[in-house]
Amino acid sequence: MEYFQPIVARVPGHHPSPYVAPNTDIIKLNSNENPYPPSSQALKVLKTFNGEWLRRYPDPYTQEFCDAAAKVLEIPPNWIITGNGCDDLLNIIVRACVDRARSVVYPTPTYGQYRILAELCGSQLIEIPYGIQSSLPLEEMIQAKGALTLIASPNSPSGHQVPLTELRQLADNVSGVLVVDEAYVDFTDASALSLVRDYEHMVILRTLSKGYSLAGLRFGFGIAQPPLLAGLFKVKDSYGVDAIATRVAAAAITDQLYKDQCVSQIKRDRQRLTLALQRLGFQVSPSHGNFVLASHPNARPIHDDLKSNNIWVRYYAQLSDKLRITIGTPEQNCQLLEVVSRLLR
Amino acid sequence: MEYFQPIVARVPGHHPSPYVAPNTDIIKLNSNENPYPPSSQALKVLKTFNGEWLRRYPDPYTQEFCDAAAKVLEIPPNWIITGNGCDDLLNIIVRACVDRARSVVYPTPTYGQYRILAELCGSQLIEIPYGIQSSLPLEEMIQAKGALTLIASPNSPSGHQVPLTELRQLADNVSGVLVVDEAYVDFTDASALSLVRDYEHMVILRTLSKGYSLAGLRFGFGIAQPPLLAGLFKVKDSYGVDAIATRVAAAAITDQLYKDQCVSQIKRDRQRLTLALQRLGFQVSPSHGNFVLASHPNARPIHDDLKSNNIWVRYYAQLSDKLRITIGTPEQNCQLLEVVSRLLR
Repeated sequence: MEYFQPIVARVPGHHPSPYVAPNTDIIKLNSNENPYPPSSQALKVLKTFNGEWLRRYPDPYTQEFCDAAAKVLEIPPNWIITGNGCDDLLNIIVRACVDRARSVVYPTPTYGQYRILAELCGSQLIEIPYGIQSSLPLEEMIQAKGALTLIASPNSPSGHQVPLTELRQLADNVSGVLVVDEAYVDFTDASALSLVRDYEHMVILRTLSKGYSLAGLRFGFGIAQPPLLAGLFKVKDSYGVDAIATRVAAAAITDQLYKDQCVSQIKRDRQRLTLALQRLGFQVSPSHGNFVLASHPNARPIHDDLKSNNIWVRYYAQLSDKLRITIGTPEQNCQLLEVVSRLLR
Repeated sequence: MEYFQPIVARVPGHHPSPYVAPNTDIIKLNSNENPYPPSSQALKVLKTFNGEWLRRYPDPYTQEFCDAAAKVLEIPPNWIITGNGCDDLLNIIVRACVDRARSVVYPTPTYGQYRILAELCGSQLIEIPYGIQSSLPLEEMIQAKGALTLIASPNSPSGHQVPLTELRQLADNVSGVLVVDEAYVDFTDASALSLVRDYEHMVILRTLSKGYSLAGLRFGFGIAQPPLLAGLFKVKDSYGVDAIATRVAAAAITDQLYKDQCVSQIKRDRQRLTLALQRLGFQVSPSHGNFVLASHPNARPIHDDLKSNNIWVRYYAQLSDKLRITIGTPEQNCQLLEVVSRLLR
């Protein structure tokens, strides 16, 4: 007997990039991490845990976070589901919505995890390429009649945002569950959050990894109407979110002032980096994330040279003339630009 | 279109007991939490995290923990897979091994999560009752020819341990993957760890929730030969274990002296509680976990009366004359016994 079910042999699995511990010389602009530390309020909470918090199982309802997020987002706390990072929530949603007989639809290029998770469920994948200038393939997506339609907005690696009117059209016309993955929403001005009240089949996903600088904590949450959440809760691990993450995340989302300061700085630097890269001959389209997608005929050698200079950016084999560059601190962005301009001289 | 795939409507989902935050008056002996705090070394590590650790994605390979556990257990670090609690690892194993066409086999009564996870994969469940005095239904389990055979040893709620010779017979004869769930292994003397070297289809599961007092942290790990782990890694979230859990768990497992002290105390108190309950008219079979399973014709009213006295123990509808009681501190055990003896007077 084969040890694994047949799908396992067919999927490629994950290949995360090598780990870089804190306090190395590497300038890591390849994973869209926030260059600033999390809120001091969140770090303060981290110091308050005693053994009593750790020896007990955590609150399966993560009430402290749900109450904090509900206040900030002006939604009821029971419209929130939390997970061990957004990947955990995507996993839960895909497993709840699809099987071999049901399909997953999403526009490409986008977050690679959508494919991995759908493949593991044996689901039919319907990948529809974005049009020129990242225009949404609305008609094809609707025609695809997915049991689950996923859309990242702002999207990575493109950095573009899907207009709210188009998301509404999608919501009006798709038959299954519609997920709007807003991992990068903190770096833009619009959100689809208001649509959740109108559509019982919509889930908005948020993470604390990007705007709130908590990628190391693993904390994501989803917003949807309670009947839809009831189905997702059936698939979720009871104790999937730990006691520390719940309370640190609650403190972080409460400190909107600090998050807004970090985000403002990143947006300013995104604008500066965009202009500087354009001056160096890159094509850079406007980004709504904490990164830019920069096109250059020599993208691959530039990536390799940067790497040998201890600066890591993201290169995609499928997008051969493009680099995705995370917005770092002003100093990090300067160092990147210096190396690139030396290379291109 | 139904929003969820058909299985979701059929499964009951999780119903975790209400959350009890630290610093309440409730004596919580219903979840097999360790009554003592985690190692001071682990708590010390918790104080060392700065923003740099949190803003970055965690090490997907959790190398710091694997190295620490490998040293303690005298196994190679690459024989270890870590997860967001043992439930995460069970989830990964079930999804990797079974689908609708492949079955999951386990003896009952046992950990309820086995059924939930197998049901969510649409797998055929083959539940085989333990014989009298918890004798392993070895022949039936082998005949069942599961793609995945699960066995908890020490088992909950029975507290019994499966002899190593029987585990070896099982390993020699089952055709699929064999998981020995050793969540409670710290409270007993034998382990199946030595068998992993002999069987390429075996996984040993361990948790830091019980012996190491870290239920709130969510940290579990599995031990198996690297080829089997390679399949499981394909199904696992890359960043499923957070940066804090990795380092706190590494410190906790390194501090064997402290764990052994806690465990010795719990074992002594298990013996005392067993005798005291027997004197009060309960039937209590020997336990290898941090709990006892105590039978009494009035189990249900005793449970309810204890609850109204702010002492929570576990009552199972399917085991109507039994209570599972976690070993607490000597004071907590005394309070429990006082209330019970008052009730039975």
